[in-house]
Amino acid sequence: MRIGQGFDAHRFASHDAGKPLWLACLRWEGDGIEGDSDGDVAAHALIDALLSAAGLGDIGTLFGVGSQSDGAGKHGAEMLRTTVDYLNERGMKPVSASVVVIANRPKIGKHREEAERALSEAIGCEVSMTATTTDGMGFTGSGEGVAAIADALVEPVDPSTRQAV
Amino acid sequence: MRIGQGFDAHRFASHDAGKPLWLACLRWEGDGIEGDSDGDVAAHALIDALLSAAGLGDIGTLFGVGSQSDGAGKHGAEMLRTTVDYLNERGMKPVSASVVVIANRPKIGKHREEAERALSEAIGCEVSMTATTTDGMGFTGSGEGVAAIADALVEPVDPSTRQAV
Amino acid sequence: MRIGQGFDAHRFASHDAGKPLWLACLRWEGDGIEGDSDGDVAAHALIDALLSAAGLGDIGTLFGVGSQSDGAGKHGAEMLRTTVDYLNERGMKPVSASVVVIANRPKIGKHREEAERALSEAIGCEVSMTATTTDGMGFTGSGEGVAAIADALVEPVDPSTRQAV
Repeated sequence: MRIGQGFDAHRFASHDAGKPLWLACLRWEGDGIEGDSDGDVAAHALIDALLSAAGLGDIGTLFGVGSQSDGAGKHGAEMLRTTVDYLNERGMKPVSASVVVIANRPKIGKHREEAERALSEAIGCEVSMTATTTDGMGFTGSGEGVAAIADALVEPVDPSTRQAV
Repeated sequence: MRIGQGFDAHRFASHDAGKPLWLACLRWEGDGIEGDSDGDVAAHALIDALLSAAGLGDIGTLFGVGSQSDGAGKHGAEMLRTTVDYLNERGMKPVSASVVVIANRPKIGKHREEAERALSEAIGCEVSMTATTTDGMGFTGSGEGVAAIADALVEPVDPSTRQAV
Repeated sequence: MRIGQGFDAHRFASHDAGKPLWLACLRWEGDGIEGDSDGDVAAHALIDALLSAAGLGDIGTLFGVGSQSDGAGKHGAEMLRTTVDYLNERGMKPVSASVVVIANRPKIGKHREEAERALSEAIGCEVSMTATTTDGMGFTGSGEGVAAIADALVEPVDPSTRQAV
């Protein structure tokens, strides 16, 4: 059993940018998050936690960085599936994962379970999500941006059968 | 074995509020932390880590939000015990948990072991606590507020015997 | 199996201080990080995660605090080795660990694997490292300082043989 930690933070895009808001593989009301991909910090923090647990680099080494990267224009769900395929091919699979979203918006509330289902389907194991604010403090409290902290457990599998070894 | 991540941050209350300072289930010298409950961010981050690991929502879904919530006026220790009962009834129990407190005050120092005992008694498994500052940077460094990051492992139990299955 | 969380943040030293930059047990180009030790926040966050997982206090209780402490002038690798010896003597050993560095600099990129090797050699188990920025937000985004979040798993060992029990 191996453990991984992940973190990501992005700035909210201006209203003029007309960017849709993607978080935890779902589309939400309101202005979106900057980034060459869809800006889904929950997905990105989970990707780093999974890659780190597997000892397989980070989101930058897997997808590249910048507007010409493999991640550019990609949605979080697609990037998560690519990440898990990458783990599976190298004999690892996710066992459990969890992510905290720190932001003033969107209000996760009644869509939390839907977000967890979307993340869990992308990864192929149970993923839990919690959400909190920072009482108006710091860059998440001012509404400047959003942050996410994730952790994950992975275990070795037989790459041909994807069963635990 | 499932993993959970938790985070919480609260603003320090003004001296005029006369609010006592509760952290890690202990009362400390100095002005308290804002919040509808006692503002114990270490307990709250642990609650989210435990609920997330168990796939049972977050502190908001279990206790509600605001001055009329089930958590209003509650101490961290009571909320932690309620959380663990909730896990046990659904066939999960805490195995191990850890929390970092990020703040200028209180000085944890010589009361660290006492805090760990209080948290461990509330949860029913070993809980460790560390404490650090941010060298005067950010909202914890300015003394505006306090943050806590927690992680936890839980495992399935037989709800009737509470033994591992 | 026990889990631990660690966090550390330090301010960058001024150019006039002429302090070398140490991070993840490696020396990097550019101005260094303040601290009584070498300011290696990745190593320090890992030390707290390991000590917390083992229930053995934190970096302050093991090394002391301030310019007269046992950690003063020490490098991260030496402090990590001391930490693991301390765990081993008390019947615990690291199983897996992971750390995220949050900073504008140094650019980890092509030296990530070298950093992971240095951390893994110091600890005696696989350590993964990822790196990210905060899009210009907060104290890491302004370039004021650097932060690191770590998690770790430890397991009991026979202190005389250092094999799992």
